[in-house]
Amino acid sequence: MSKKLISRAEDYSKWYNELVVKADLAENSAVRGCMVIKPYGYAIWEKMQAELDKMFKETGHQNAYFPLFVPKSLFEAEEKNAEGFAKECAIVTHYRLQNDPDKPGKLRVDPEAKLEEELIVRPTSEAIIWNTYRNWIQSYRDLPLLINQWANVVRWEMRTRLFLRTAEFLWQEGHTAHETKEEAITEAKLMNNVYATFVQNFMAIPVIQGLKTESERFAGAEETFCIEALMQDGKALQAGTSHFLGQNFAKAFDVKFANKEGKQDYVWATSWGVSTRLMGALIMTHSDDNGLVLPPTLAPNQVVIIPIYKSEEELDAVTDVVNGIMKDLRSKNISVKFDNRDTLRPGAKFAQHELQGVPLRIAIGARDLENKTVELARRDTLTKEVVPIDGLVEKVETLMTEIQDSLFKKALDFRNSHITEVDTFDEFKRVLETKTGFISAHWDGTAETENKIKELTKATIRCIPLEGKPDKGVCVFTGKPSECRVLFAKAY
Amino acid sequence: MSKKLISRAEDYSKWYNELVVKADLAENSAVRGCMVIKPYGYAIWEKMQAELDKMFKETGHQNAYFPLFVPKSLFEAEEKNAEGFAKECAIVTHYRLQNDPDKPGKLRVDPEAKLEEELIVRPTSEAIIWNTYRNWIQSYRDLPLLINQWANVVRWEMRTRLFLRTAEFLWQEGHTAHETKEEAITEAKLMNNVYATFVQNFMAIPVIQGLKTESERFAGAEETFCIEALMQDGKALQAGTSHFLGQNFAKAFDVKFANKEGKQDYVWATSWGVSTRLMGALIMTHSDDNGLVLPPTLAPNQVVIIPIYKSEEELDAVTDVVNGIMKDLRSKNISVKFDNRDTLRPGAKFAQHELQGVPLRIAIGARDLENKTVELARRDTLTKEVVPIDGLVEKVETLMTEIQDSLFKKALDFRNSHITEVDTFDEFKRVLETKTGFISAHWDGTAETENKIKELTKATIRCIPLEGKPDKGVCVFTGKPSECRVLFAKAY
Repeated sequence: MSKKLISRAEDYSKWYNELVVKADLAENSAVRGCMVIKPYGYAIWEKMQAELDKMFKETGHQNAYFPLFVPKSLFEAEEKNAEGFAKECAIVTHYRLQNDPDKPGKLRVDPEAKLEEELIVRPTSEAIIWNTYRNWIQSYRDLPLLINQWANVVRWEMRTRLFLRTAEFLWQEGHTAHETKEEAITEAKLMNNVYATFVQNFMAIPVIQGLKTESERFAGAEETFCIEALMQDGKALQAGTSHFLGQNFAKAFDVKFANKEGKQDYVWATSWGVSTRLMGALIMTHSDDNGLVLPPTLAPNQVVIIPIYKSEEELDAVTDVVNGIMKDLRSKNISVKFDNRDTLRPGAKFAQHELQGVPLRIAIGARDLENKTVELARRDTLTKEVVPIDGLVEKVETLMTEIQDSLFKKALDFRNSHITEVDTFDEFKRVLETKTGFISAHWDGTAETENKIKELTKATIRCIPLEGKPDKGVCVFTGKPSECRVLFAKAY
Repeated sequence: MSKKLISRAEDYSKWYNELVVKADLAENSAVRGCMVIKPYGYAIWEKMQAELDKMFKETGHQNAYFPLFVPKSLFEAEEKNAEGFAKECAIVTHYRLQNDPDKPGKLRVDPEAKLEEELIVRPTSEAIIWNTYRNWIQSYRDLPLLINQWANVVRWEMRTRLFLRTAEFLWQEGHTAHETKEEAITEAKLMNNVYATFVQNFMAIPVIQGLKTESERFAGAEETFCIEALMQDGKALQAGTSHFLGQNFAKAFDVKFANKEGKQDYVWATSWGVSTRLMGALIMTHSDDNGLVLPPTLAPNQVVIIPIYKSEEELDAVTDVVNGIMKDLRSKNISVKFDNRDTLRPGAKFAQHELQGVPLRIAIGARDLENKTVELARRDTLTKEVVPIDGLVEKVETLMTEIQDSLFKKALDFRNSHITEVDTFDEFKRVLETKTGFISAHWDGTAETENKIKELTKATIRCIPLEGKPDKGVCVFTGKPSECRVLFAKAY
């Protein structure tokens, strides 16, 4: 298989699919819609997990683990939630295989091992968790309950794409319980803000925080906060959501508490999640026609060193110097890999690390040893320079910050130059056809208008920005009054 | 619910079940046989995971993630493995629910959404992983392939117990591929040794490394290495296994590689795993009638500090001193919690932390402030002493090591005093009835004898110890010749 990718301009969608596979991030499996996350891709996900987990704990949350399965009777208890997920869930009906009497060596489902009640493989865990919380919460002293779970979930989507939409995916789901409505709303906002901070500072992806419209809300939520990012092809990607669930689940599962006045009241809830979908956002925000581009925070190897040599003696001499450089880099918590494989030529190694997005490449050969220099290549700008070994570690340290900042700034500039304010529907359609990106427009607040615009243009309301200033106007489609602009876009 | 536990002497099994629930480690869920791991229990599991993950990476392994589901045709490809798990697996047959026409508000499985091929929820992942490896391995350059996965698995066990045997459990499963038989055997031994080191040094549980007999081997393995621990009731617990799989999976999934001579050969395999079952081993090895006893390495809080006060002023004065102590402890990487809840009296706090196994408790009141002392209580020995605040941190540091060592030594002494060499079957049965523990006896090497002994006594061969010295003798049951002693026990 050629390592060369199709260009983004030629076929953005194909470029993405090829990149995910060729950079060894993930691949399709033998199970329809389910992916295998390969070691290189998983190492990036682990870095995301570690940082998010730290942020969750710093904001007072604890991890726990709840069952993979949801009995059907619990699944259907919160009606809107059930309705939202019923059409795409994997259902366990039997618990045993037996030898197939008609096909020697083959197995079949044992018809006698049918479950009394079907089990749904969790598409999300509100039902099983709120059924558990009923026993954990008696009084205001048990509140707030601030719990997160790292887990796999399954949604039987018909059209899947690696990382972006898969039948099984990995995620975290926070589920919290509170005394008051205000406290729950504050929590939902806080966690949306944690997501925004993480995605911007750690993944170098600018996001807009906002509220979903009623038709785009999580099934069972009263309000959904979200962070929306913009990909290089001008399509939006929902990178995380945080839901204020009101008392819907508390009522469905009868979770009451004695408040400070001794009265019984239903508990207020939130839930919030991000998933391996973030890998898709990462790839599509920074990468280029040569392959993956990783921010230093997420790179499994921040620096790769490649020796250039013609003899064993030269390799030995280079290795001596490299060992010193690696020690110094590691003492500054910079991860570095010495790629001294003797099965590949330097050019092939350069290509591989470029494809896999290693932020900095150092090449060092016999002539460098004489000159006490190395060649330093930046992945994000594809620029090279020869620098002295003396001071190299400080240089690399500075570059780590510089690359991180530069990736964010580049993505932010792109995003900001792709938000277009429009005031007529003709303009709206023209922008979608030419420039794409976010369209900032007035909307009359009805689901009817939202749906019509979607039918006509495939653009949906990505969010009502939290920081949108009041700006009265008239709906771009119906001409009815509007209180603020909302962001439309075609989306992943 | 009373916080007091039944004693071990009265009912060991009930003591275990009560302890797991009352110490807030885990509980049964609404899904038959599946548990909820509560935050306190999960925090302990996270510490195990972190240490194991570090050890896996230090031995060259990388993490990845493979699908939850195994299509039936892949599941049955390796015959022995399929046979071993067919009778206890959860099977997904449908992918959609619909409104039940007969029961308004209820859902039912949509009969039209039947999968063409059933999916097995993974009981273990050899099948799906080896089907993937076929595309990853072409040449000896791709080997060894050293991969680990942290995942949930499902085995539809009929009789379940929290942590020890649950329908769903969390584990890690390593799956490696090698050029030669020798290399694969070395890997299987290495990982068994990693497990032994972890369980002994980190969990303070002594283990015996050994080989399983053919009838106790993992389904599809040529050889199973294991670590066996002894619980306080004299029953053995298999704490981890590492399998040499020969070329069985390579042949079943056609995974060949070009060796250095350019010839095609099947790949050699291992797999190895430990699970949340280790939580059961931890609990049953160290805990006592007052509750959980945790080694400092695994305690979510290594030290808890409880203020004793009669007024806000006293609490303020105590808090000032406690803040200094906490800062000093944390600077030594000792985790500490200040339990200043005003909803519980000190006695209730003492009881809770004792039940939850916090290794060290510090109580500090107004009189202590005058005397510049604190009261220090050790959970493992239930001893108390008054010590000066000056030098407290060094004292605590020393105690952390001392407690860890002492727990291991206590468990080792117990284990060693519960290995009995027997040479007749009468003695064998008498030991099982009175002292329990491991029985070291000669065995003729046949599955027939092994089964008969199991039928008659419920004792199984836990392992053929790796460090067993050659010691010719005659089988305790048949009188036939034997090459070495093996360890029998009743087991979890």
